[in-house]
Amino acid sequence: MNIIYGLDLLGTMMFAISGAMAANRNNVDVFGAGFMGFVTAIGGGSLRDIFLNIRPVWVEDGNYIMVISLGVLISLTFNKQLYALARTLTLFDAIGIGFFTVVGVEKSLMYESNAFAAILLGMFSASMGGVIRDVLLNRTPLILRKEIYATACIAGATLFVILDSFAITPAMNAFASASLVFTIRIISVRYNWSLPAVKQIYPKKT
Amino acid sequence: MNIIYGLDLLGTMMFAISGAMAANRNNVDVFGAGFMGFVTAIGGGSLRDIFLNIRPVWVEDGNYIMVISLGVLISLTFNKQLYALARTLTLFDAIGIGFFTVVGVEKSLMYESNAFAAILLGMFSASMGGVIRDVLLNRTPLILRKEIYATACIAGATLFVILDSFAITPAMNAFASASLVFTIRIISVRYNWSLPAVKQIYPKKT
Amino acid sequence: MNIIYGLDLLGTMMFAISGAMAANRNNVDVFGAGFMGFVTAIGGGSLRDIFLNIRPVWVEDGNYIMVISLGVLISLTFNKQLYALARTLTLFDAIGIGFFTVVGVEKSLMYESNAFAAILLGMFSASMGGVIRDVLLNRTPLILRKEIYATACIAGATLFVILDSFAITPAMNAFASASLVFTIRIISVRYNWSLPAVKQIYPKKT
Repeated sequence: MNIIYGLDLLGTMMFAISGAMAANRNNVDVFGAGFMGFVTAIGGGSLRDIFLNIRPVWVEDGNYIMVISLGVLISLTFNKQLYALARTLTLFDAIGIGFFTVVGVEKSLMYESNAFAAILLGMFSASMGGVIRDVLLNRTPLILRKEIYATACIAGATLFVILDSFAITPAMNAFASASLVFTIRIISVRYNWSLPAVKQIYPKKT
Repeated sequence: MNIIYGLDLLGTMMFAISGAMAANRNNVDVFGAGFMGFVTAIGGGSLRDIFLNIRPVWVEDGNYIMVISLGVLISLTFNKQLYALARTLTLFDAIGIGFFTVVGVEKSLMYESNAFAAILLGMFSASMGGVIRDVLLNRTPLILRKEIYATACIAGATLFVILDSFAITPAMNAFASASLVFTIRIISVRYNWSLPAVKQIYPKKT
Repeated sequence: MNIIYGLDLLGTMMFAISGAMAANRNNVDVFGAGFMGFVTAIGGGSLRDIFLNIRPVWVEDGNYIMVISLGVLISLTFNKQLYALARTLTLFDAIGIGFFTVVGVEKSLMYESNAFAAILLGMFSASMGGVIRDVLLNRTPLILRKEIYATACIAGATLFVILDSFAITPAMNAFASASLVFTIRIISVRYNWSLPAVKQIYPKKT
């Protein structure tokens, strides 16, 4: 359990770094970077917890805000170095969404969600932080762009729910499902995959 | 009660269709269409439930996500035909917001809201899904444009609260209030009504 | 206690006025002005309450929606006069955010938040209403612009949490902390302070 908790904090810190970095590109001050780091790190999990009608973890446990602050600090200090590591960051982000998807599905099932909702909430846990961050930064959310991102999360979450009904060790299920998310995401970045677009039969409206 | 439940699922499916169709105009992939259908369908009711501090219905009841998926599928399959039916869709949307407004007000009153909050939450139930969808698609929310939309919901919700204090059959109250929402909306579309604009006394700021 | 309640309603009304006024600049109809007044007035406190997993005050207590409606009415009636009072409004807004920050921190601590979360939630209570309003109006949220706004709230909230651990009268703590928020905000407006920007090392992406 302590390992899961440690990974949760680590993933939270990494999402804070990525959120602060995304804000940095938008000409913000240090508060803006910190705020965006926070939103990206806890946005997804908090939305899931709100739908489950429970209190988000960071409200009672101060360690979450501490690792977020550390992540933002890292982002501001090593601004240049992190930018050069863009590809490494995509790798770490893919690990992160795999992990958070599984944590999210598992927590939702634990709180009596139906299977479909648990899959959605697992995907939310991993991706909605970035969506909220994008909305605040006034840009098209990543999940609406032509990349395979949330779909990877849905795939892993679906696998988790399926395996959950068999006699698989929870740890093995988590590893397999998180790996699926990670693999789909990395391969789709590598080979520039995208889902079929919806056929446009009329001029684009604004 | 089964009729209300059936209508709730039907209305949810129709909002999913309209949400997916709105996304289709914005050059999204199939995941984007599905996500927008989901947001439009459950956004309003979920926001109301969050304010009431209860769990949204779709978290425990899997039928909601199923009808949403069906609605998105219909939207993607009959993309062209549905677009030609724009006027019919306005009609169905008007029926939908009438229904959801009444369901929303009634549920809020049941959970001890004050009358004003119940009216607002009824309006939220019907219209906020579309607002959240518009925010994600980076366009001005419908309720802030020059159409009479949410105002129709407020009118019907207000009538419901008023009739609720008399000895009117709940079914008759629901029918009268939903009809008022529907009628105001349809007539305002037909005759291009709009509320008075706020007088602009200074140059428009961005 | 009645004084706190009265100040809470007064501050709510003032945020409704400022929210409706902000909407007025964006060419809305009277419903849009009212909706924006509502969002600005209850947005921050409601978000805090949602994170604390409790019901927002305006759902059961009808006085909040009443003062919001009054504030919107005032905003629409005295549109021109209020615009000329821009500087006075900044003053009242600074008083308001000081007050709401303290109320927010105190309520969060009362509901078992950790100290860091309480500080954040105090800042949310005062500033997130305006953020939600800005997102709906499709403009960059105030807290991401080059002004010292939410930082003032964080300063006051931090002071409150620190003093809270000493044997200070709650009333004195509240006064000192709210005054700090107010002072920082007013001085930063007067002298055009801003936080350090994050160094831009790459071209600005959209």
